[in-house]
Amino acid sequence: MRTTLRQADRYDQRVDRLGCVTERLVRAQRALADHDIDALLVTPGADLRYLTGYHALPLERLTCLVVPASGEPSLVVPELERPAAEAAGVDVAIRGWQETEDPFALVASIVGEVDRIAVDDHMWASRVFALREAIAAEQVLGGPLVAALRMRKEPSEVEALREAGAAIDRVHRRMGEWLRAGRTEREVGADIARAIIDEGHETVDFVIVASGPNGASPHHEVSDRVIEPGDPVVVDIGGTTAAGYCSDSTRTYVVGGEPDPEFVQLYDVLEAAQQAQREHAGPGVTAESVDRVGRQIIADAGYGDAFVHRTGHGIGQETHEEPYIVEGNTLMLAAGMAFSIEPGIYLPGRFGARIEDIAICTEDGLDVVNRTPRKLVRLP
Amino acid sequence: MRTTLRQADRYDQRVDRLGCVTERLVRAQRALADHDIDALLVTPGADLRYLTGYHALPLERLTCLVVPASGEPSLVVPELERPAAEAAGVDVAIRGWQETEDPFALVASIVGEVDRIAVDDHMWASRVFALREAIAAEQVLGGPLVAALRMRKEPSEVEALREAGAAIDRVHRRMGEWLRAGRTEREVGADIARAIIDEGHETVDFVIVASGPNGASPHHEVSDRVIEPGDPVVVDIGGTTAAGYCSDSTRTYVVGGEPDPEFVQLYDVLEAAQQAQREHAGPGVTAESVDRVGRQIIADAGYGDAFVHRTGHGIGQETHEEPYIVEGNTLMLAAGMAFSIEPGIYLPGRFGARIEDIAICTEDGLDVVNRTPRKLVRLP
Repeated sequence: MRTTLRQADRYDQRVDRLGCVTERLVRAQRALADHDIDALLVTPGADLRYLTGYHALPLERLTCLVVPASGEPSLVVPELERPAAEAAGVDVAIRGWQETEDPFALVASIVGEVDRIAVDDHMWASRVFALREAIAAEQVLGGPLVAALRMRKEPSEVEALREAGAAIDRVHRRMGEWLRAGRTEREVGADIARAIIDEGHETVDFVIVASGPNGASPHHEVSDRVIEPGDPVVVDIGGTTAAGYCSDSTRTYVVGGEPDPEFVQLYDVLEAAQQAQREHAGPGVTAESVDRVGRQIIADAGYGDAFVHRTGHGIGQETHEEPYIVEGNTLMLAAGMAFSIEPGIYLPGRFGARIEDIAICTEDGLDVVNRTPRKLVRLP
Repeated sequence: MRTTLRQADRYDQRVDRLGCVTERLVRAQRALADHDIDALLVTPGADLRYLTGYHALPLERLTCLVVPASGEPSLVVPELERPAAEAAGVDVAIRGWQETEDPFALVASIVGEVDRIAVDDHMWASRVFALREAIAAEQVLGGPLVAALRMRKEPSEVEALREAGAAIDRVHRRMGEWLRAGRTEREVGADIARAIIDEGHETVDFVIVASGPNGASPHHEVSDRVIEPGDPVVVDIGGTTAAGYCSDSTRTYVVGGEPDPEFVQLYDVLEAAQQAQREHAGPGVTAESVDRVGRQIIADAGYGDAFVHRTGHGIGQETHEEPYIVEGNTLMLAAGMAFSIEPGIYLPGRFGARIEDIAICTEDGLDVVNRTPRKLVRLP
């Protein structure tokens, strides 16, 4: 049923975004000119949705936005999809192609004689190759250009991320209703999933309920393991709101008794590291420095090898997008960038812990959208 | 909640498929050798699932199956995903990479010195480009090779498609419970979506309830239009079963009264065309000939311009895959090929009709998996 709602609501979400869409295309064109790229070609995905407001399904028939460095952008769509594109309020010229036409030749005719074209990062290989045949030009990745735009959230996007954060916080605050010793992770996960929808999301994107030793696997989802008294339980959950923005927050709970004393010690280290990262992150510091600040504290406590993943990922219309908070990313954080701060410590075979907040860089600091307690939460 | 189930059940479905997986890899290697391709690289998607049984999520961290023309295949995964890959019972060597490693260099080291590599058709452009940097070899599309394997369904896959067809037939048989004049398409669609799950699917993939003039838009989904007495309603629905195979069937109904006389006339033409296509399709005839047989009948009745799409698409682990039943596809149908036969006639502003069955080519004919009546169904 959610699929149906998704499909129907694709057409109702444009109102939020249309205001910015034309401006976004103009900024994309400016970026193309700055990089000596003649045209950007974008197939269905988050980039297309960001640039046009059209949440197209990834079908085998080619849909492709053509953004020239100068001149009018246009959207090539199968005639079958024209009604959907029009219903989405796409405000660029729509060029339909018939069932037996060659859509790549159509794109080529629109692009014309050029030296260099950019394709979206998620364009299928089959299309990259077909466009190479159809258009004699150097191909480069357009992702970095669009990511640079998408990374700096507009006020309406910041507000949408705050709403998503508040919605997932409401779910964490209700955790005591479902998370108990004696239940399986899968049972708890199903209840959480229902609550994610009830508290203001349109889709459930992921539900991780990792109890006891399962907590030591960062991407564990749910299993039939029965939660035991004293188990630490990592709960990492997120969904997408009707506005099309994602939530993602992790809290670690202890249920039905006292945990292993080392776990409490480990959790204190993690909490200190995540707090230090929140205090460090802000405009003018690099993404990798945020990772280092937390990693150092965890390493100093002797758990360096147990923090097996990067500190975080950007978030917006996709749960994982740029900027990535990871060693090697020298990007300078700036106002409007939204990302997760989620250090974790994992002891294989025993337990794990993770604390995750979504934070938005402001002109003078950091706006943390998740507000539930970060201290270890003990549930009966 | 379905997302949660999907994620959890990814790990429980391998049993159905593992039997064939090794054999599939062997067939893929034979195809590579036949085409002078040194290695096939496959990222998450239906091809990866078909070849390994691993239903990996499309994450930004690289997961890539490396299938050399000779020698042992291996699966490159982020260490974070290793538990998921192992839980899926992947029976090739797993090569994990750490958060700050370069996974493309790892793939290159496994591939070694080669002249020509194939990448899966849906591989992201960002990865196609990164692999081009990492591996000095000609890149070709691997899709055709894998599609040639996937197109010929194994007995277990044919059985899975029959089960999916029976499940969607049960939903069509219950249509009278929900489809009535006075209700909106969206209300009816939500009921149908619930029934798609209840009758034996794990996900709802699409629900089209196209009433009156909306029936003239082949890819209309649902809207708030209130269905009127005498409306023809095109209902095109499908889902995916726990075994990972898709259903897809369309029936056209008339509700609450007599339709426009021309609609009845038009429907008779459509029914005759679809029957002729079912009688023609089978081993040894081309895909395009199946399209022509129906198109001719519809054209002779004066509705040629109103049949605006191809006759059908292949189906399996994806709703749309090869073979496509379309003019220009000279592929010879053969035993094990599964595809839809779904001619339609659409009169803009007035109404439309479509009849769709999934059919599987056998050694000596055609096995049509959908069995509900194809005559115009009149509901009270």
